[in-house]
Amino acid sequence: MALYDAMFSQYGANVAQVLVTEPDFYNTEFRFNMKCTVLELLGLNIIPIINANDTIAPLDINKELTEAQVARDLKLKPGDSIITVKDNDSLAAHVAVECGADVLIMMSSVDGIFNLPPEEDDARLLHTYCPGAVGDIVYGEKSELGLGGMNAKVKAASWALDRGVSVIICNGMQENAILKIIQGKRVGTFFTNHKSRSTPVDVMAVNARKGSRILQSLTPEQRSDAINRIAELLQSRKEEILQANSRDITRAEQENLDSHLVARLALNSTKLNSMSDGLRQIAQSSKKFLGKVLTRTLIAQGIELKQISVPIGVLLVIFDSYPNSLPQMTALAISTGNGLLLKGGIEAAESNKCLVQIIREALSPYNAMDAVSLVNEREDVAELLQLEEYIDLVIPRGSSQLVHSIHQQNCRIPVLSHADGVCHVYVDKEADFTQAVKIIRDSKCDYPAASNSMETLLFHKDLVTQKFFEEVCQTLKNEGVKIYSGPRLFNLLTFGPPLAKSMKIEHGGLACTIEVVDSVQDAIEHINIYGSGHTDVIITEDKEAAQHFIQQVESVWTFKNCSTRFSDGYGFGLGSDIGISSAQIHARGSVGLEGLLTTKWILEGSGNTVSDFTESGSMMYHRYPLTTETENINVMSDTPNDSDSDQPIK
Amino acid sequence: MALYDAMFSQYGANVAQVLVTEPDFYNTEFRFNMKCTVLELLGLNIIPIINANDTIAPLDINKELTEAQVARDLKLKPGDSIITVKDNDSLAAHVAVECGADVLIMMSSVDGIFNLPPEEDDARLLHTYCPGAVGDIVYGEKSELGLGGMNAKVKAASWALDRGVSVIICNGMQENAILKIIQGKRVGTFFTNHKSRSTPVDVMAVNARKGSRILQSLTPEQRSDAINRIAELLQSRKEEILQANSRDITRAEQENLDSHLVARLALNSTKLNSMSDGLRQIAQSSKKFLGKVLTRTLIAQGIELKQISVPIGVLLVIFDSYPNSLPQMTALAISTGNGLLLKGGIEAAESNKCLVQIIREALSPYNAMDAVSLVNEREDVAELLQLEEYIDLVIPRGSSQLVHSIHQQNCRIPVLSHADGVCHVYVDKEADFTQAVKIIRDSKCDYPAASNSMETLLFHKDLVTQKFFEEVCQTLKNEGVKIYSGPRLFNLLTFGPPLAKSMKIEHGGLACTIEVVDSVQDAIEHINIYGSGHTDVIITEDKEAAQHFIQQVESVWTFKNCSTRFSDGYGFGLGSDIGISSAQIHARGSVGLEGLLTTKWILEGSGNTVSDFTESGSMMYHRYPLTTETENINVMSDTPNDSDSDQPIK
Repeated sequence: MALYDAMFSQYGANVAQVLVTEPDFYNTEFRFNMKCTVLELLGLNIIPIINANDTIAPLDINKELTEAQVARDLKLKPGDSIITVKDNDSLAAHVAVECGADVLIMMSSVDGIFNLPPEEDDARLLHTYCPGAVGDIVYGEKSELGLGGMNAKVKAASWALDRGVSVIICNGMQENAILKIIQGKRVGTFFTNHKSRSTPVDVMAVNARKGSRILQSLTPEQRSDAINRIAELLQSRKEEILQANSRDITRAEQENLDSHLVARLALNSTKLNSMSDGLRQIAQSSKKFLGKVLTRTLIAQGIELKQISVPIGVLLVIFDSYPNSLPQMTALAISTGNGLLLKGGIEAAESNKCLVQIIREALSPYNAMDAVSLVNEREDVAELLQLEEYIDLVIPRGSSQLVHSIHQQNCRIPVLSHADGVCHVYVDKEADFTQAVKIIRDSKCDYPAASNSMETLLFHKDLVTQKFFEEVCQTLKNEGVKIYSGPRLFNLLTFGPPLAKSMKIEHGGLACTIEVVDSVQDAIEHINIYGSGHTDVIITEDKEAAQHFIQQVESVWTFKNCSTRFSDGYGFGLGSDIGISSAQIHARGSVGLEGLLTTKWILEGSGNTVSDFTESGSMMYHRYPLTTETENINVMSDTPNDSDSDQPIK
Repeated sequence: MALYDAMFSQYGANVAQVLVTEPDFYNTEFRFNMKCTVLELLGLNIIPIINANDTIAPLDINKELTEAQVARDLKLKPGDSIITVKDNDSLAAHVAVECGADVLIMMSSVDGIFNLPPEEDDARLLHTYCPGAVGDIVYGEKSELGLGGMNAKVKAASWALDRGVSVIICNGMQENAILKIIQGKRVGTFFTNHKSRSTPVDVMAVNARKGSRILQSLTPEQRSDAINRIAELLQSRKEEILQANSRDITRAEQENLDSHLVARLALNSTKLNSMSDGLRQIAQSSKKFLGKVLTRTLIAQGIELKQISVPIGVLLVIFDSYPNSLPQMTALAISTGNGLLLKGGIEAAESNKCLVQIIREALSPYNAMDAVSLVNEREDVAELLQLEEYIDLVIPRGSSQLVHSIHQQNCRIPVLSHADGVCHVYVDKEADFTQAVKIIRDSKCDYPAASNSMETLLFHKDLVTQKFFEEVCQTLKNEGVKIYSGPRLFNLLTFGPPLAKSMKIEHGGLACTIEVVDSVQDAIEHINIYGSGHTDVIITEDKEAAQHFIQQVESVWTFKNCSTRFSDGYGFGLGSDIGISSAQIHARGSVGLEGLLTTKWILEGSGNTVSDFTESGSMMYHRYPLTTETENINVMSDTPNDSDSDQPIK
C-alpha cells in the first residue's frame, strides 16, 4: 500500500485500501456495503486498491464453497454460470460486476488473447474476442486458442462480460495502456458479446491478399468483364445508390456541412453515367498491364529469364468524403490484380457502403469479392498505418491536411502521396510578356484552391522596373488576388505589398507572393529550397535558359511557357489515377495502372545448377536479350528449351 | 527545493541546496570551499542544486565589480576573458569550471544554436558550434547566427569551454535529453574548440545534392569519362590504395578478425584490375539511362509532354566491411547523377577513405567532387536514418543483421533492401527426379551461407513413400546437411528427423527443413505464409502446375526447374548492382542503373492556359503519343511548335 500510495501521489491521486475475503461476496449485505464503500471512495476521488484480506483469509486456502451454496447466496437463476473468488482475476470480475463498472481492464504480462499459442509462427493477437462464438473469429482453419495460461483470466473476463461489464485483457507493461484504452485505441483483447458482424481489418487485409491472388489468376478479359459489370451495376442499381447517397446528404445538411462540400458529396444520374463510362474505358484500356513480360533474356541454353509485371499486393486508399472516385480507384486495383482496402470519409459512409457492396457483387462470380473491402468508419487511420504486415502500400487521396496527418504518423508502410503545392512561375527576362500575363493569371486564378495553383511568382530583376511588372500586379489585383512581397522585393519597393511570413507558404486561395531573383540560376535555387517539388514553370523564349531550368529544377512537373494548372492526369491524357505522388521512388506524378504494379523475375530452366557454370562446368552464360512479345503470364510461353540459343534470336 | 526534492526522490536521488553570491566567486578561499562542498556532496551521491542566495544578494542587483578587480581576484593572466556572475548561465559556467566538470549541459526552451534566427525558413540547428571559428561552420552564404536571445548562454558556454569544460546547449523539454547526451547521441548544440575538420553529415548531404545537380548538367560522355578516370586511378594509384588497405589488414589481424573475413577485406593488384574493368564496363554501358525520354505525348497543338528519367537525389549506402564494392557503387551513382553518401564498416576505414579520396579527385575536374562523400566512422547509423530531409533513399548492403537493424529503427527514409532468405524448393509429383536431385543439392550446398540458398524443401505427399525421397535425403546427408522435419513430415515418419522449431527459420548453413504438402496449391500457400519472398523454385514437368506456381508465389524470384542460387544480378547478366531489394515498390531484385532513377514530367507549351481548353475555349486536347527517340535531356528537342499536330506524327 505504501508503494501504491507513493506512485499514485505523483499524479496527485489518493488511494485507499479495501480488503475483502471470499465469503464477503456471497453475503448480500456485505456485498452491498462493499459496493457503497467503493462508490463512496470513487465519489471522493479516491482510488480503491482492492485485495484479499490475507491476514484472516488468503483467497486460495479458503474453505471452498459448493457452487450450489454460492448460487443460493448470489440468488442466481438456474443456468447462470458461477465463478468462485479464487484469485485476483475472479476478485476483479466480482468487484467490477458488483459496482456496475463500465469497463474492467485486466493487466497481465502478455499482450492479450492469441488465435494460437503465442509462441507459434502464425500466432496473432485477437483484438476482439467473443467468448460465445469462438468459431467466428478464429483465423484460418486452426481453432485452438492461444490462452497462454490465461484460462483463469478468460473465465473471469467472460463471466464479467455476461454481467454487462466490458473487459479488456492487455499487457500492463505497455506504455499508457489505460489512457489509450480510454481513448478508444486498440490495446490488448477486447471482450465482446457482439458476434463480430464486421470483419476485423487485419482479416480484411488477409482476405484482400487472397482476393488479389484470385484476380491474378483470371484472364485480362475476365478482369475487364468484372469492371464492366460494375459499370453496368452503377446504372442498373442507380436508385439504390442514390438512396444511400441521399441519406449522406441529409445527414450532411443536418450537420450544417458547407454547401460546396454537400454539392461534391451528392451523386446523380449524370455523375453515375460518367462514372460508368470511366470504368468501361479502364476495362478497355487496362488489359495489357498485369502479367506483361517486360524483359526476356536467354541466360544460357535452356534457361530463360523473364521480368513480368505483378500487383503490389494489398493497397490501402484513404480518401476524402467524395464517393465519385471510389469505383474508379477500385477498377484500377482490379485490373492490376491488387487487393484494396478503402477507408472513406464519414460524410460519405452510406454511399461508400452501397458502392462497395455493388462492387463486391460484381466480383463474386469470380470468387474475388474479398479483393475489395470498405474499412469500417470506426477504424482509426492511425491503427491502419501500423498494419505493415498486411498492407503493402498506403495511398492517401484528399486534402493536404489528410496527407500531412499520415506523414506525421509513424507509418512503416510505404506511402505514395503529395502534400504541399508551393508552385512557382518564374518570368525570365526573355519572356514573352503577353504569354506571361496569360499564364500567370491562369496559374493563380483558374482554381486557386488546387494544389497546382501558383503560390509564388518570381521575376527576373531586370523586369521589376518595367511597365510589364506593374501590368502583372494590376492583372492579379483585378482578379482579387492579395499580393505579398518576398524579402528582396520588399526592400526594393518603397510602398510595396506586405512582407510574406515565409517563402514556403501555400496560400491555398486568391493570394500569392512575388519575389525578385537575379538570374535563372537564382530562380532554380529559390525553387529547390522553398518549393514543394510539385509544379514549377519558366516563362522564357531563351531555349538555353529553359533547358537549364527544366534540368535543374527537381519538381515532379517542370514546365515551360504554360500554366501550372496543366499538371494533372486528365490534362496529360494519362487516364484515371488512384492518386498523385511526389515521392522520390516508384511512380511519380499521377499514379495510374503502371504505378500499381511491381515486377518479379521468373527463371525457367531445365534442371540447371549454378555449379554447371563453374570453370570446370559444362555450361556457359550467353545472356542474349530476347524480344518481349505482348505476351501475358496467363498464356505462358512453351518451355524455354524451344528457344535454342543456336538458332537465331527472335 | 521541496519540488526538486520531491522530483529527484522519485529516482531515489538525494539533493542538497547550495546557495552562493557573486562575490563568493572572486574570493579564492570561498571558491575553494564551494568546490570542496560540491565535490563532497557528489561523493556522497547527493546532487547539489546551486542557486543565487537571493535572501542576501540576488545576482542581478549586486554591486558590479570592475573587470580589473575581478581579474585580479581570479588571478587571471592578461588577455584572458572575464565573465561576471550575472545570471544562472554565468553561474553555471563558473561552477562547472571551478569544480572541473567534464560536461556542462545548459538546458533552455530552444533546441540549441541555429545558423540563422530560428524563425527563418532556412534556420538549421547546428550540431556543433566552434565559438572561435564562426566562418567555418556557417552554412551557405549567410553568416548571422541565430542565437535567439541566447547571447548570455553562448558567452557563458564559450567561457567554460575555453577553460576545458565541454558544453552542450539543448532543449530541456526533450525527453531523456541528459541520458541521450551521456550516451553520446546528438542532442542540441555541442560547443567545441575543435575546428570542424570533418564536415557534418547534413552538410555532406546538402553538398551531395549540389553534386548531383552538377552531375546531371554534364553530358553522358562526361559522366562516363569521370568513371573511366576512376578506373585509371585505381590502377595508377595502386600502391597508395594497397598501403591503406594493408593498414586495415594489420588492424584486423591485431584484433583477431576471422581469417576468412580478413581475406575478403584484402585488396590486391588482381582485384583492383578487375574493379577497373568493372568500372569501364559501367562507363560504357550506362550512357543512355539518365535523362532518357521515356514517353512523349502531343497534348494539344504546341504543347508537348515528356516523361524523362532523373536521379533519385541523395543515396545513403550502408555497407559491410569489404571495400571492393565501393568503386562500383560509386560508378552507378555517378552515371545516374545521384549524390552518394557512403557509410562503410570500421574494418575497411582506411581503404574506404583512400578510395573515396581518389574518386573525389576524379570528379574534381567537373567540380562534382562533393557528389560522393564518405560518412565518418563515428557517425551513428541511427542518426543518419533520421536525416529524411537530406537523404532520399537508404540502401543497406551486407549481412541480414545489418538490414534487420535498419528496419528495426524508426526510419522515415525509404529503404531498398532484402533481409531474410527463407528459400523453398518444391518437388512436384511430376518432377524429373534426376533434375530434382541435382537442383536440390546445388540449391542447398553450392554456398549454404548465401541468402538464396534453399532452407526448406517441400515434397508432394505422393513422393514421400518413394525411393526418390530417400535418395534426396541421402544426398543431402552425404553433403553433411543436417535435416529437420516440418510438423507434417514429423507425424508421418516413425523415426524421422527432429522437428524444426519454426517453418520460418533461415538456417544459414548446412541444414534444411523438409516438409510435406498435398498439392502445388498447398505448396504455394506454404511458401506465401512461411517464405521471405526471396527465391522459390518448383521442380515439375507439368506445365500447368508450373504456371500456377509461378503466378501465385509472390516472391521476387520465382523459378522453375533450376537452382535457387541463380537469383543474383551476375547470373542474370543484369550488370552491376548497388544492392538487392525485395521491397514491394520501386526496383525489385538486383538494383542497378534503372533502380537508381525516377522520373519527372516536362511540359513545353507556347503560352497555354487550362482555360483555353474549357468549353468556351479555343483549344482541344489531342493527346497523340509520339515516338521517343533515344534523345537525352542534354540535347533537348526544338520548341514543340515544330511538331504540328496537323502533320503526321513521328
